[in-house]
Formats: sequence, structure tokens, C-alpha cells
Amino acid sequence: MPRIAFRYRMANSKYEYVKAFERSNYLLPNSWIVVRLDGRGFHKFSAKHRFEKPNDKRALDLMNAAAIGVMKELPDLILGYGVSDEFSFVFHKDCSLFERRESKLSTTVVSTFTSYYVHLWSTFFPDTPLSPPLPSFDGRAVVYPSVSNLRDYISWRQVDCHINNLYNTTFWALIQHGGMDGKEAEKALMGTVSSDKNEILFSRFGINYNNEPEMFKKGSVVFREYEQVLGPMSASRSSTPATEGTGQAEPLSKTAAERERKTRARARIAVEHIDVIKDDFWVRRPWILSGKAGKLPKEN
Amino acid sequence: MPRIAFRYRMANSKYEYVKAFERSNYLLPNSWIVVRLDGRGFHKFSAKHRFEKPNDKRALDLMNAAAIGVMKELPDLILGYGVSDEFSFVFHKDCSLFERRESKLSTTVVSTFTSYYVHLWSTFFPDTPLSPPLPSFDGRAVVYPSVSNLRDYISWRQVDCHINNLYNTTFWALIQHGGMDGKEAEKALMGTVSSDKNEILFSRFGINYNNEPEMFKKGSVVFREYEQVLGPMSASRSSTPATEGTGQAEPLSKTAAERERKTRARARIAVEHIDVIKDDFWVRRPWILSGKAGKLPKEN
Amino acid sequence: MPRIAFRYRMANSKYEYVKAFERSNYLLPNSWIVVRLDGRGFHKFSAKHRFEKPNDKRALDLMNAAAIGVMKELPDLILGYGVSDEFSFVFHKDCSLFERRESKLSTTVVSTFTSYYVHLWSTFFPDTPLSPPLPSFDGRAVVYPSVSNLRDYISWRQVDCHINNLYNTTFWALIQHGGMDGKEAEKALMGTVSSDKNEILFSRFGINYNNEPEMFKKGSVVFREYEQVLGPMSASRSSTPATEGTGQAEPLSKTAAERERKTRARARIAVEHIDVIKDDFWVRRPWILSGKAGKLPKEN
Amino acid sequence: MPRIAFRYRMANSKYEYVKAFERSNYLLPNSWIVVRLDGRGFHKFSAKHRFEKPNDKRALDLMNAAAIGVMKELPDLILGYGVSDEFSFVFHKDCSLFERRESKLSTTVVSTFTSYYVHLWSTFFPDTPLSPPLPSFDGRAVVYPSVSNLRDYISWRQVDCHINNLYNTTFWALIQHGGMDGKEAEKALMGTVSSDKNEILFSRFGINYNNEPEMFKKGSVVFREYEQVLGPMSASRSSTPATEGTGQAEPLSKTAAERERKTRARARIAVEHIDVIKDDFWVRRPWILSGKAGKLPKEN
Repeated sequence: MPRIAFRYRMANSKYEYVKAFERSNYLLPNSWIVVRLDGRGFHKFSAKHRFEKPNDKRALDLMNAAAIGVMKELPDLILGYGVSDEFSFVFHKDCSLFERRESKLSTTVVSTFTSYYVHLWSTFFPDTPLSPPLPSFDGRAVVYPSVSNLRDYISWRQVDCHINNLYNTTFWALIQHGGMDGKEAEKALMGTVSSDKNEILFSRFGINYNNEPEMFKKGSVVFREYEQVLGPMSASRSSTPATEGTGQAEPLSKTAAERERKTRARARIAVEHIDVIKDDFWVRRPWILSGKAGKLPKEN
Repeated sequence: MPRIAFRYRMANSKYEYVKAFERSNYLLPNSWIVVRLDGRGFHKFSAKHRFEKPNDKRALDLMNAAAIGVMKELPDLILGYGVSDEFSFVFHKDCSLFERRESKLSTTVVSTFTSYYVHLWSTFFPDTPLSPPLPSFDGRAVVYPSVSNLRDYISWRQVDCHINNLYNTTFWALIQHGGMDGKEAEKALMGTVSSDKNEILFSRFGINYNNEPEMFKKGSVVFREYEQVLGPMSASRSSTPATEGTGQAEPLSKTAAERERKTRARARIAVEHIDVIKDDFWVRRPWILSGKAGKLPKEN
Repeated sequence: MPRIAFRYRMANSKYEYVKAFERSNYLLPNSWIVVRLDGRGFHKFSAKHRFEKPNDKRALDLMNAAAIGVMKELPDLILGYGVSDEFSFVFHKDCSLFERRESKLSTTVVSTFTSYYVHLWSTFFPDTPLSPPLPSFDGRAVVYPSVSNLRDYISWRQVDCHINNLYNTTFWALIQHGGMDGKEAEKALMGTVSSDKNEILFSRFGINYNNEPEMFKKGSVVFREYEQVLGPMSASRSSTPATEGTGQAEPLSKTAAERERKTRARARIAVEHIDVIKDDFWVRRPWILSGKAGKLPKEN
Repeated sequence: MPRIAFRYRMANSKYEYVKAFERSNYLLPNSWIVVRLDGRGFHKFSAKHRFEKPNDKRALDLMNAAAIGVMKELPDLILGYGVSDEFSFVFHKDCSLFERRESKLSTTVVSTFTSYYVHLWSTFFPDTPLSPPLPSFDGRAVVYPSVSNLRDYISWRQVDCHINNLYNTTFWALIQHGGMDGKEAEKALMGTVSSDKNEILFSRFGINYNNEPEMFKKGSVVFREYEQVLGPMSASRSSTPATEGTGQAEPLSKTAAERERKTRARARIAVEHIDVIKDDFWVRRPWILSGKAGKLPKEN
């Protein structure tokens, strides 16, 4: 909180020299910034607060609700992607928030997320009061120079979601329905590939993995909702003027920037459980990579 | 949350190469690490949630309670110092938590603090429900190579606390008791020095600044409590073997380290509002700079 | 020099822990790396060694000869651009030399350049022996995420070359032919724009700036020479598969990589004084941005 | 070279934005900076230029002469230590050269060293002309927070010098006088400790390792020479006001700083081959760690 007193003081004290030891990492301009956060000690935390296995819908909904809070408080964010107890948030490559200082960006995202997570806890877990150690998250910022790298990052997380969820679904089926203990289930899965796990699920437990909830299989994609582009479009990953540009973004006029900001702030934050690896998601929502707010959809 | 599935997979996907873009800043060994966090937009937040001016005891008590939570969850911390909506936390120079990775250290401290702040809010503000935008904090890690630099950092914050509090106390007295508006109060204080402000407080409002609460004047010091050293001691700032050493700390035996950790975890976290600029505070509590747990005080 | 002795030792000494204080900055993958070096104290150095003003052809030829040396010793370099006492060297975005460690890259370029500069000095200045303080250069590495940014960097230097050379040509004409001293010349040029300077040169000294040597007006571009692409080509700055790719370069087979390396090593290093702002230069030499060696031109 | 033209121009071109991509690493204040450089490809280089094995006195003398050049051109340096084809240079913890920017410091040291090395080559190798690939060096800056860490760094290098030299001396004796080839010598030394090597040297070749030249056994220490302190002194490694201080160095008056600078510039650069692990070296030369020029010795 900037304090009024600062306005007038000229000097302060002989100790003030210590300020010169602060170092800031200004992230490379014209590059996509991803802040990924992870639950700290959530293995223990989820056990203590009795999360259902392999997936606890309440816990995932709470993660998504916290992500919506983050997207609302930080209009510079263009996308969120969450799975299990991790969430990734993407700042546009032209973002200049906090002068792109790494520590400001990562701590602000992590703190805002934590704040909503704890505040909304009782909404999603009305019967399970929080008790210390409380939930917390750590985070890191990563920079990606191209749209391809960024999309590969998101694809990486979604592939991981699938791999982990298939494993965990099978692992817990063996325990919950197959009567195994953890070690036996581990052993049973050792060396298996995807088709093996699908087969185990289906033949032994009658579970068709394809029918599992999309949220578990695909994770959660969080973004501002504008009117989608519906016609057929070039779906290539190659750069368009909007996404690669000259690296020297045309600065919006002040009025235009203000209008833009307001449109963003008014946009509904959507949470969907869909494929973000293929082009379709991105082609229909050009505002995500362009960073330019689209047209708000008509209210029904 | 490390997932069981990780244990067996060898490869993952063609997207995994993006992991190579992550960069970590490993903070310089043998140096003191300070993580300072600040409330984001607390000017507005405090107005909306009707904090008393110039100081709201409930808000400061909540900050301190959150700091205690942080100290308890992170036994590597040796000290906290808080004032207004900021808090500084100190890791010992020999600390190896998270391999001293900057982003892990700063986001973990900030997230844990936020978690306690929101969780404990209703205890300190039972009649004021939180509503978005929720409180959040940003943070940064700073490295100090010597004990002198570290103590100067803490002194800097405590001097700042004093300067700001004297200003704010006078400023709000002029408004609350002197009938001025903000601009008039600002103008009245322009160019004044400490003695002027003391004089205004005393002659116009009968306020003796010295009698103001210590928490407002000195801020809050948070540390683990062991038996204090009471005898006369050399109080110099010069380095002692324990505090400067060779930079190559003798590794404790595994048993000793475990015992140490347990003693720390059992120590009560004290919150005091006392001078940390002079030597006395540090001399009586040698465990703070030595990083070695002291003897737990007897229970009364 | 790796020493044989290292092979067998297991430990070394209790002092070896200091190695843990070393920090490396691994430059962002999939980004163009520019190392720019500048002469240290060359104002004084050039005066002492009687460089001709405003441009000394021998000094520029020596800079270019040193740059050729650097390009030959570091086949990873794709381009050099020099003006006055500065030279910029570009590593391809897929370069993995020294694992992209900043200090290795910048010190190696600067040291190699210095080595050739001093070694070749007497070839270009046969009558002017070097004496301390000897010539030296400092350098820095800068990372550019897109081809556009990289080309804008090169364009920036070439525009700077033009601006400085026009100024200096006029400034020294006023002194050498106009009888002014430095202060008077400075004053005469204050506030002038390009057309003013062209006019002064032409009307007062009969100098047509356009006829000045290309090396002075355009600087020096250094690159490996292969057969140029001659037909009409799309000259856009937009990314082609070769230049933007997926960020995940297809690794060449070992044999192919070796062949590639040999072709590069055999390529003649060209030095030209031509426009690098427009597309033409880049379109005719696609190997520069693709990083793939072209076909060696036939010997005449 | 700062160009006169810069003084007047206000803007430059639309390309200038690329300057914003430059990042500087300002090294931590109040910490010792070591720049260590290493010969690149010196195994090959020394073979091609027929360095004598295991040590070539001319090559070492050339390294030392280059180091003297560096110390003379950079008065901020307090110490150099060289062994084989590596040299370490130490900047005082209060040094503010180039605002402590890492790349400026490391490239300047490396470039200046290279310049002297090439320039002086023919003095030390009059019969061996240099030919491409020319000698070059890479370098890195490392920061040490305490005097102990700094001295441990220097000790580490001197211990390494001893270990390598004893190995190499024995290895080459086996080859040059024992008729072995490289592989046989390696095998003969596998698993041997120091006493074994001493024994081999003495019993098989009549070489008393202790009588080997000090330069080979101890490396080369380079520093400014003032009048030594001769009386008995406390030789502890503990910090003295001069060496640890408050971290907030009392700024010298302008006249005093100028006088200091001149004294430094006039000081002879000494090269000695002595122990720098024990206290004696440092105690007798307090100016090295204090950073304050001493009294120039009387000329004989």
C-alpha cells in the first residue's frame, strides 16, 4: 500500500541503501509468459481433507472457481489451464503488466489464486472445515518466444492430464473395486500402456474410459467468452499478423485501450473441458492469441 | 502434487520439450534471503472494508496471525517483521530450502501468508465479510551478503514504520480531530520534520506520540521463542563464528538435524513490538542469527 | 584446458564447495542471440593511433578482418554486422553452442575478436605499432524472440550507421575544410536534419554524400557465401517453416549434421556493404535465417 | 566509442525499440567478484605451438605478463591468480566499476587479457609465429559474499594447481624419461595418491618434487605492491572493520579517491609464486582485502 507519507519525504535513513540490493528480472518482451502454480503438499492435504479418489469433483470445481477469480482480477491474462492441483495462466506476449517483472507476476497470480481458493473453500466443502496446515501453492513463470511453443506448452499439460488420469483411474479401480492395496495396484500397472489400462478398466470393472467425465479427461480451460468465429477458417499454426506481428505492437490509442479494458472486464469467464491440442479451439477464439477483446455474445 | 503416475512413465509426449524453457534463479549461497510481501491495492481494500485510520488494530493483528502461520509452516524462517500491509520474512544464510530457488521461496511465502490471511479474516473481522476483489499480496526475494546488511534492512523497515506512523498519526488527527480535509492536512504537514509533528499532535490535540501503542510505533517482530540470554554480552555487530563462519557450514549429523527441526517446530512463535535497530534484541536472542535452535523456555 | 589429472580424482579439497557459487544464465531456447561488442575507450585509442577522421579505412578493414576470424572459428554464427568500433554477431535461434550459456557465448566472441584484432593490427597499420593501453572490447548478449525483432535489430544498427556517418562526415568537413574547431562545428550542426547536412556538404564543400564509400554509409555485413537465390521470391517478413518452425527443430541425423558443419566451414566469408533493412538481402540468402548451409558457389 | 553524433539526436528510428530487449545482470553489492578465464582449446593450441610438457615456462610467463596488463588497465582489481591456461581476477566487494554489470566486467577482463596475450606473444615465443586458430579465452564472473568464501576460492585454485602439477609432472616423467606412452602412464598412475607420485618421481627418476620450480607448484599470484606489514599480527580469518565493515562503505572524499586512484596506478604489479592458503600472505598485505592503497615502497 503506497503510503501518503512517501510523497514528501526526501531522504529517509542511513539504512535505505539496502534497497540497492533488490534485483528484478524483467521477462523478455514479445514473448508469452506462463505462470504455473502447484499445490504444496497436496498429497497430504487432500488425504486429510478426504478428497475423493482418483478425482474429487468438488476440489476441481474449487480450483476452477479460484482460476475464474484470478482471470477477473487480472484482465491481462488470456488463458488458464488446470488439471489436478495445478493451474497455468498465460499472459499475452505484448503484456506490460508490472513491467513484466517476474516476481510481481508470479507472486500476484499465486496469491490471488490462494485467496480465492481459501475464501471459496466452504462453498465447495461445506462440511469439511479447513485446518492448518492450510492449502498453499508455489509458482514459477516461464517464457515462450513463439505461438507454437506456447501451444505446445498447453498441449503438454493436456497430454499429461490424460496420461495421469488414465493411470489414476485404473490404479484406483484396482484398489476400490479390485480389492488390491496400493503396492499391488502399482505392480499390476507396471509396464502397461494406454490400451492395457483401457482393457483392464473395461474387462475387469466394466468402465469405458471414454465415458469418464470430460473434466477428468481433458482438464479445465478458462478464458474470456466472446462471440465465436463459426465459419471455416485457415487452421494453421503459422503466424498471422495478429499473433506474430512485428514484435513492435501498435500501441492502441488511450481511448481504444480503455474501451478494450472495459470489454475484457465485462466478458464472462468460461470454463470448458475440451481439446486444446488441435487447432479448432484456437481458430474459433481468435481473441485469445490476438489479445484483442472480441464482441461480447448476446445475452439470452 | 507429485502424482503416482510419474513413477513409471519414461517418456510422455512430443510436447515435453517445452520444459526446457524453464529457468530457475538459485539465490547466492551463504547469504541472507529476505522475502518481503506487500498488500496489493490495499488503499482501496482497506477503505472498502472500513479499516480504522491511521491504524486498524484488527488488521495488524490479522497480519501478525498470518505471519505466525507462515513461521509455523516454514521452520527455515528465522524472523518476520511487519508494518502496515507489508511483512518481511528472513531465511538464514545457510538455508537450503527448495535449493534456494527464488520463485519457489517467494511464491511459497506469499501463498502461505495469503492463505492464513483469508482463513483468519473472519476471526479478526467477524462483522465484515470479505468480498471480491479479495486481498492479495505480491512479493520479492532480496539477498543480503552480510549480517550488517541484513540488520540494516530490518532497521530500514523499522525506521520507515516510525516515519510513516508519525506522519499518518498527525495527518489523521488533523482530519479526524482538526476538521481538515485530506488536502488541507497534506498542506499543513508539508515541510514539517519529526519535532514539528510531535508538537502539532501535543499542542493541538493533546496527543503524546510516545504514548501511542508500541505496535503502531515499532511494527511487529515475529520469531521463535527460546530461553533468552540474560547476562551482559558483547553487543557488537562484528561477526561471531556462529554468524559469519567460513561460509561452509558444518553439516549437522542426521540425528542432530532432526532433533533441531523438532525443537524449532515446538517453539512458540513470539510477536513483539520492540526495537530491532539496537544490538540488544539480537544479543539476547543469539539463535536468530546463528540459526541454531535454543533451549525451549519452561512452561509456567 | 581440461587437464588429464581430472580424469582420476574423485574429490579434491575442502575448498571445492566454492564451485557451488557459480551461476549460469542459459539463454532462452528458440530465440535469436546477438552478441554485440564495442571498443573500450576507442575515442582515446583512435586519437593515439592516429585514425583518420571521420572514417579510417584501415581501421574498418581491420574490424572486418577480425570479424571474419570470428565467423571462421565459430561456425554457429550466421551473421555479423559492423560499424565504427562495434560489431554484432548473430547466433541462430536453434544454436546450442555452450548450452546457450550467456557468459561463454559473449566472452568467447569478444575474446576471439580481440585476438584477431591485435594479431592482424600490423597488417593494417604497418607503420603504427600498438602500445598500451592496448585495444580491448566489451560485449553483451541480447535475445530476440522473432525474426522480425532480429531484423529490426540489424536495421537499427544500420540506420544508426547512416545517422552517425552523415553527422560525422559533415562535422569533420566543417573542421577539415571549413576551418572550424570542434565547438563551432557542433554548434553549426545543432538542430540540423539530414537534408540540412547533405546541403552543407554539397554547397559548401562540393561533397555529394551519396558518393561516399558504401562501407562508410552502410557498414559491413559479414556472412557465409553460398549460391544466391536469384529468381523472384516472396519477400515478406512473415515466417516461413524454415524460420519460425515449431520451436522444436527436427534434429539432423549425425551424418547430416557433420556434412552440414563441413560445408559451413568450407564456405567463404563474404564482407559486403549493402542494405540489410529491405527484404532483398535476406530473400536472396535464405541460408542465413534458415541456419541450413546452402550450396557452395562454383570456383571461378 | 561514444560518438559525437549522439549528443544531439533525440530520436533515431522506429527500430530503436529493440534496445528494450537488453538485460543486465547487476552483481550483488558488498560481495567479492571473481572473473575466471580459461584458454579455449588450449590442449590443441599448446600442441600446435609446441609448448613444453608438463609446464612451458614461456607460456606461463606470457600468461603472467598478460595478467599484469589487465591489472594495470583495471585499477579496481585487487588480485590475480593464475595456473596453467587459466587466470582468476578479483574485484573488491565495494567495487562499482560498470555499475557491477556482469557482462561488462567479464568481457572487459577477458578481452584485455586476450589483447595482451596476443600482443606479447612474440616476446615470449620469438621463434613461434601465431597462426589461426588464434588463442582465445572464455570467462565467467562468480560472486562470493564473504572474505572466507573468497579466500577459499583462491585456496581451491592453488590446491588444484598442486594436484594437477604433481600428476602432470609424474605423468610426463613416465613418458619422457620412463619410455611409456600416454595410456601406459595413465594406467601407472591410476589410483595413486600424492605420496605414491612423489615416490615414483624420486625412486625412478631422481626427481625431488619439492625442488620443482615454485611457479609450477604454487601458480602465480599477481597484486599491487606496497610496503609490507612486517610485525607480528593477528592472523585470523575473522573479519576486521576494513574487510567486513557495514556493507555501507564510507564514500571517500573526491580528492581522497583521486589520490587513492593515483597511488594504485603507480604501484608496481608484483608476480609471486607463494602460498595464498595460509594467513601470512594476506596479513602482510592488508591493502588487498581492505581495498585501500598502501604506501609505495621506497625505490632502491
